[in-house]
Amino acid sequence: MDDPVLLTGSEGRVGSAILGDLESKYEWRLLDREPPAADPSHEFFVADITDYDAVYEAVDGVGAVIHLAGDPRPEAPWNSVLGNNIDGTHTVMQAAVDAGVEKFVFASSNHAVGAYETEERKPDLYRTHDEFRLDGTELPRPGNLYGVSKAAGETLGRYYHDEFDLSVACVRIGNLTEGHPPIDYERGQAMWLSYRDCAHLFDCCLTADYGYEIVYGISDNDRKYYSIERAREVLGYDPQDNSAHHDD
Amino acid sequence: MDDPVLLTGSEGRVGSAILGDLESKYEWRLLDREPPAADPSHEFFVADITDYDAVYEAVDGVGAVIHLAGDPRPEAPWNSVLGNNIDGTHTVMQAAVDAGVEKFVFASSNHAVGAYETEERKPDLYRTHDEFRLDGTELPRPGNLYGVSKAAGETLGRYYHDEFDLSVACVRIGNLTEGHPPIDYERGQAMWLSYRDCAHLFDCCLTADYGYEIVYGISDNDRKYYSIERAREVLGYDPQDNSAHHDD
Repeated sequence: MDDPVLLTGSEGRVGSAILGDLESKYEWRLLDREPPAADPSHEFFVADITDYDAVYEAVDGVGAVIHLAGDPRPEAPWNSVLGNNIDGTHTVMQAAVDAGVEKFVFASSNHAVGAYETEERKPDLYRTHDEFRLDGTELPRPGNLYGVSKAAGETLGRYYHDEFDLSVACVRIGNLTEGHPPIDYERGQAMWLSYRDCAHLFDCCLTADYGYEIVYGISDNDRKYYSIERAREVLGYDPQDNSAHHDD
Repeated sequence: MDDPVLLTGSEGRVGSAILGDLESKYEWRLLDREPPAADPSHEFFVADITDYDAVYEAVDGVGAVIHLAGDPRPEAPWNSVLGNNIDGTHTVMQAAVDAGVEKFVFASSNHAVGAYETEERKPDLYRTHDEFRLDGTELPRPGNLYGVSKAAGETLGRYYHDEFDLSVACVRIGNLTEGHPPIDYERGQAMWLSYRDCAHLFDCCLTADYGYEIVYGISDNDRKYYSIERAREVLGYDPQDNSAHHDD
């Protein structure tokens, strides 16, 4: 990718993981609602993502967008996810299409499918012997309104791909933690995503060729109920970490 | 269903089809944004469905909701479907759960999956020899922002079912026309839904037992690319019409 890449929500945790490993690999434009804490080392846009004109200014001239901005709280109330996540994602996708962007990577979430973790399946589905897998072809089953908003973002991506030929990858991000995977938390270990695997996966999304994809963003954990086969096959994802081996 | 049934968007076309055949079978409460043209024969609520308090008043005490209200235009702009269809459906579902409603029937649309009609599949998929079928387990592929909003409504229904045990049926309504099926319009014939089959299908949704369902709302057309098997099996849908036989 020779053109700049716009990273929305750059000041959040996923943005940190991405920039931590990929800062020098791409020419970045960063966008966040609040000004950066320190002097930014890249072009920085302070904008609300529901402000079309401000978003268009940031997206005009980039080759790809990684769209992370939004209310990240699983317990976020409806009005916030309706505006920040659903309307915001529409605004960024529409501006991207209008500006001729080719590739769009959308930060979806495990919460888009959280209600597959039924009482009958828990806690077995978090354990290594269990063979239940979600692979991205299943219908959304959000466990909260935040998850509803992420599923809506995925559907918007489908629309913008089908109608405008935008390449769209939706990454259902698991449990991203820096350093160690969650301790004594089986669910967290099953969906752990290390910082370096996170950066690598988004790097794959920027470089691979695809039309529309929904993939799971987790490390290669022994415990898992999300398949990473599609990410391996289509994107070339090759995770290095595993929550079971982290003490090695 | 002994308790009243709330019908939102009662003044629209689908509402006419439902009331035409089922007016005397249920105790109706009607809701629409505009007052009725004639003196209503049922309790009538004039309300915008994004007004929680007004919706709660209408829904309090009913056993089931048929939710038709929203912007019905396939070409509706984003701001309208975001408010009227996505936010509106959230408001009605939340109010229904808060009021202890048991059953919720959501008028989804063929537009939630319109982009499956690819150039490669057209026009074969509209013809009787073609075996391509959508059955409701597939991911949404909207061909317009109206379809995006209907898919979001389905996902909201999944959430309200999983979290609050609301029974939710989403009906992806085809091409509803009174009298004759569309003439010289293969797509319209493939997804034709007669008025009496429409009323019967919504009747089934009010009387059957189910958890969460997505079904297609079309008559038993020779031409079809939507399966009606799930509606038959779970809801007892037994359509009487067929766009191929209408001249009989």
